[in-house]
Amino acid sequence: MIIGGSASQKLAAKIAKELNTTLIPIETRKFPDGERYIRIKGELKDEAIVVQSTGYPQDENLIELFLILKNLKSMGIGKIRVVIPYFGYGRQEKRFKTGEAVSAIIIAELLQFSGADEIFCINLHEDNITEFFSIPAYDLSAMPPIADYIKEKLQNPVIIAPDKGALGFAKEIAEILNCEYDYLEKTRISPEEVKTKTKNINVKGKEAVIIDDIISTGSTIVNAAEILKELGASKVIVSCVHPVLVEDALLKIFAAGVDDVFATDTLHSEVSVVSVASMVADALKKPRN
Amino acid sequence: MIIGGSASQKLAAKIAKELNTTLIPIETRKFPDGERYIRIKGELKDEAIVVQSTGYPQDENLIELFLILKNLKSMGIGKIRVVIPYFGYGRQEKRFKTGEAVSAIIIAELLQFSGADEIFCINLHEDNITEFFSIPAYDLSAMPPIADYIKEKLQNPVIIAPDKGALGFAKEIAEILNCEYDYLEKTRISPEEVKTKTKNINVKGKEAVIIDDIISTGSTIVNAAEILKELGASKVIVSCVHPVLVEDALLKIFAAGVDDVFATDTLHSEVSVVSVASMVADALKKPRN
Repeated sequence: MIIGGSASQKLAAKIAKELNTTLIPIETRKFPDGERYIRIKGELKDEAIVVQSTGYPQDENLIELFLILKNLKSMGIGKIRVVIPYFGYGRQEKRFKTGEAVSAIIIAELLQFSGADEIFCINLHEDNITEFFSIPAYDLSAMPPIADYIKEKLQNPVIIAPDKGALGFAKEIAEILNCEYDYLEKTRISPEEVKTKTKNINVKGKEAVIIDDIISTGSTIVNAAEILKELGASKVIVSCVHPVLVEDALLKIFAAGVDDVFATDTLHSEVSVVSVASMVADALKKPRN
Repeated sequence: MIIGGSASQKLAAKIAKELNTTLIPIETRKFPDGERYIRIKGELKDEAIVVQSTGYPQDENLIELFLILKNLKSMGIGKIRVVIPYFGYGRQEKRFKTGEAVSAIIIAELLQFSGADEIFCINLHEDNITEFFSIPAYDLSAMPPIADYIKEKLQNPVIIAPDKGALGFAKEIAEILNCEYDYLEKTRISPEEVKTKTKNINVKGKEAVIIDDIISTGSTIVNAAEILKELGASKVIVSCVHPVLVEDALLKIFAAGVDDVFATDTLHSEVSVVSVASMVADALKKPRN
């Protein structure tokens, strides 16, 4: 039994199909004054899977999710497994300055209080977020479906992380595709000059695929794409898990001469062409302690 | 020690002034992707008062409030008194149809879980909402400051509730001003015709002040104003506690020939001229068990 929130309607339907289970009809809309109305219309079983991304508009998607979870619990549902394909507020996971709200912890606590019994996220921006839950919480990787997509589209790719922090993603994809991978490293040449280039491999004449978890404003990606073109890459393709894509991020990336951009459907966007549905369904089917 | 949320900045400052206490500096802003950032900058004492209305955008104001409350608790604040001048999601306080989320209960539970130790609201749309909290929760009335304002502006008013449900407000104001009050009653004259008029008093030649708790789309008020003008009122003034004012509500009301519209500052609007600050400060000062 699957229930989709308004941020993940198609993805919820796809996961239901993969699991060969029912997508429960839900009415979710806003009153003229902006308040959310939720009504769950289907016949309920003892267990439910709720799918809702909490990307923009984060606060609306979160309140909707709290209302769905609390409502299901008040209707007597025993176990709720919550799939949060994109986990909003996942970037502030510690207090950097005195007085800062650690939003990732607070959102985790509110989700758990609202009735989540198990949490499934995808490529959390910070590894430690699963630890903020005292219920089982899993951080799935979307690299396998992204690798499959690259395999279909490109003959001889090299996978490039825009910085060292993203190297793990490049490595994971490269190991599936059995291809080269690397990251872009900044080197200070003189007090005035910093040079950024691939750390180990030569991308000249190669199809370079940039991979990151999130593309937000796009500036990291624009910078990386320009460097790869300077280094002689024959094609520059940009990929990510979560296309947050603030304002004109896509335009900026394409204007930098990027050949293609693709992302997964954890968030909907013009470039959300890789579905995580089958990967999520597998994770939900997997027996766990 | 008072902390204002972004929905109640000026009101928080006014309450702080009335209580002769400090307004704590807080940084509350949004990241480019839409996520809220909160930082409480002042020196904290053991007790705090947080002021935040949860009107439109309700969900943003609620998440901000949860972040502030949880953050204060994590910083070691002992007691948090929360003033919610307008309590959003206050209209769905029971399940009318199977499967509906009872949002008023859910929001109350989330507020309490976030760290509220005491709740102060103003003219809750449904009386039973205070019962959804297991912490002390108070429903204050803004009728005294509204009555004071009417007294200043009008010589000889009559106070009119647009329907029987609002009669208590009219009565409360009329008793302070020692003037007449009434409500508009619908009578079915024939199967095709319904006539609405004042139940008891004659408004001809009088200054009629319509009072309601909330003005939302304005249609109830437009209807009431038109009837009072037909009945010969010399002036029609519209007042309410919470100016929710969806879209062009004010334009519609003025276009119906209303002479003036005023409301309190539980929500900010073009007509929020009556401050509840002093009334709220009195309630906060009052010794309670």
